[in-house]
Amino acid sequence: MNVRIGRRTSHFRTVTFDSGSNEVVLIEQRALPHSFQLVRTRNFRQTAQAITDMVVRGAGAIGATAAYGLAQGVRAFRGTNIRAFAKHVDTVYGVLKAARPTAVDPVNAMNDVIADMAGGESVEERQALALAAAEDFANSDVEHCRAIGQRGAPLIRNGMRILTHCNAGWLAFVDIGSATAPLYEAQRLGKEFHVFCDETRPRCQGATLTAWELAQQGISHDIIADNAAGHLFQRGQIDMVIVGSDRTLGRTGEVANKIGTYTKAVLAHRHKVPFYVAIPLSTIDWQLKSGSQIPIEERHESEVLGASGVIGNGRGGKRAYLRIANPTSSARNPGFDVTPPELITGIITPMGIFQPEELWENRSVLSLSRRLA
Amino acid sequence: MNVRIGRRTSHFRTVTFDSGSNEVVLIEQRALPHSFQLVRTRNFRQTAQAITDMVVRGAGAIGATAAYGLAQGVRAFRGTNIRAFAKHVDTVYGVLKAARPTAVDPVNAMNDVIADMAGGESVEERQALALAAAEDFANSDVEHCRAIGQRGAPLIRNGMRILTHCNAGWLAFVDIGSATAPLYEAQRLGKEFHVFCDETRPRCQGATLTAWELAQQGISHDIIADNAAGHLFQRGQIDMVIVGSDRTLGRTGEVANKIGTYTKAVLAHRHKVPFYVAIPLSTIDWQLKSGSQIPIEERHESEVLGASGVIGNGRGGKRAYLRIANPTSSARNPGFDVTPPELITGIITPMGIFQPEELWENRSVLSLSRRLA
Repeated sequence: MNVRIGRRTSHFRTVTFDSGSNEVVLIEQRALPHSFQLVRTRNFRQTAQAITDMVVRGAGAIGATAAYGLAQGVRAFRGTNIRAFAKHVDTVYGVLKAARPTAVDPVNAMNDVIADMAGGESVEERQALALAAAEDFANSDVEHCRAIGQRGAPLIRNGMRILTHCNAGWLAFVDIGSATAPLYEAQRLGKEFHVFCDETRPRCQGATLTAWELAQQGISHDIIADNAAGHLFQRGQIDMVIVGSDRTLGRTGEVANKIGTYTKAVLAHRHKVPFYVAIPLSTIDWQLKSGSQIPIEERHESEVLGASGVIGNGRGGKRAYLRIANPTSSARNPGFDVTPPELITGIITPMGIFQPEELWENRSVLSLSRRLA
Repeated sequence: MNVRIGRRTSHFRTVTFDSGSNEVVLIEQRALPHSFQLVRTRNFRQTAQAITDMVVRGAGAIGATAAYGLAQGVRAFRGTNIRAFAKHVDTVYGVLKAARPTAVDPVNAMNDVIADMAGGESVEERQALALAAAEDFANSDVEHCRAIGQRGAPLIRNGMRILTHCNAGWLAFVDIGSATAPLYEAQRLGKEFHVFCDETRPRCQGATLTAWELAQQGISHDIIADNAAGHLFQRGQIDMVIVGSDRTLGRTGEVANKIGTYTKAVLAHRHKVPFYVAIPLSTIDWQLKSGSQIPIEERHESEVLGASGVIGNGRGGKRAYLRIANPTSSARNPGFDVTPPELITGIITPMGIFQPEELWENRSVLSLSRRLA
């Protein structure tokens, strides 16, 4: 999507590959929103480290990064011995898999690449197939997000005020994003609307990443404290909610997403405001039978007890962590919550919009491979 | 209430008066929770400035500060000419009234002092009556809060987990507080319970002031992001909510309080968890006929776009303002919201616990003067 640098607006993806130099090119997400920087990783170990260090985050984005990292490692092999090559591939795969042990996207992405490589005979052919498969994975991620946008955009009417929570934007994918996709598509169609970004404490991905994305794209928006949405609902100032999802249960329609999502769904339901969840197919979990089985990560209390940003009110300030809370108090910090299907108006997928209860009966359509029909 | 300084625990009020030196003694609330300091104002103009500069905040606390400030100014008069004295009193009153123009508590408190002074003949007698009236006002504030505690404490059972929002603690009054009063009384009775403090963005009075109060008092507690309560409700980990109120409509039972209160009331109602509001009588508005008439202050966006605290994770760090949000984004910042009576289990007053709809029929009891029966 768009990034404004000085007076110029350029188009970037979150992750791309420079085949000439065999480097993965990443947007340094830890520097956002205060500074826009690109990072180039020179080998697969640096790529794994970038995943570990959160240079890149978000399901689709780390999937594509791992796929490119695998191709990068595979392409660095010198020689023609197919058994030595296979051993090298295993090493690269293992290092990238270990970069973010609990994430499923890098593993799925790399398995796709490995499967495609099997079609080659020589080392050289397999190296070429690895790169093609990684590019294919990244392009599929973009196509899925674009399809979400096309499915979701008709929901947005002129003058609407739309609430979103956390960041399910293009920075979390290769491009376009999930919850943001209908916004970007509606803008492309010339619709005018306003977005309220929940700041999304404790890590404030709404105030930092989503607000940055919308500002770069020139979409009208305001950041609000997570406490403020209730009042805006009461005064009739929110017409729709769109959020993303970390895991959606295909059997029940329950949605696990960033902490605070459930609260917004409860408020939307009370005020009869439609509540949509936009998801790529990869986040659907067809196994779990109940949202209560979803493990809720308890994150470090320092996130709640303070905040990160830059000192002072201007640009170019020094990055710092600020302690806000009473120094002798502890904090609880659940990272996610689960929204039940009765609070969800619709789930926007690349294949169309479904009621949460309809996912299971449509599982053959929604279980399609990453290549869209 | 208690303040731990080194190894000692001492008792403090938010505001007291040193009659020997004619100084008002205030807890410097802007330094909390990172540092505990007392401030002495040497004359009524300094006292007014301390109110303006938010050294002291909270309805009961600024009421008592204005009452003491009036006594302080009155006592500084030299001479016996009763007309010159009356003119001086007017000046003092005007300066203190202008210190926080929209607040009603300083005016009500000073009117009490002025009324009592009328009982004196000479300047000297009126000076003595002013001080006695100010002390009486402060003591009445404490008695009202103590009564709230005695009325509310029976609601708290052993093992309960209680959610609170913002700070309606002793720092907002002369002592004890309103929402905190049942907690302190329950602790005194030997009950064991746990408190979740909403951090209460954007100004984080829960993470700073309420958490500090509870830590000083040795009450078990955790700070949570405002987003987290919904998840805790879902998992059955909150048994009761107690909040304060900035304005309670006597005709309708609607409660205006810190932004985010309404959201917690909606969640409590959904999960059948009792939701109590603790109020001193002074916050009841008998005039307004609808919560929609309550003006909702829109505060400066810098509160939402950043946060204040100390640099680093340790004690003694340097105070700073940190910019969190995307630098090219704006924010909406409503300061309060209105909770409707159907979401409120009971209103804890010094006179007992009432259903919100019962306030009006009990207005003769609830309109009693500041002196408890």
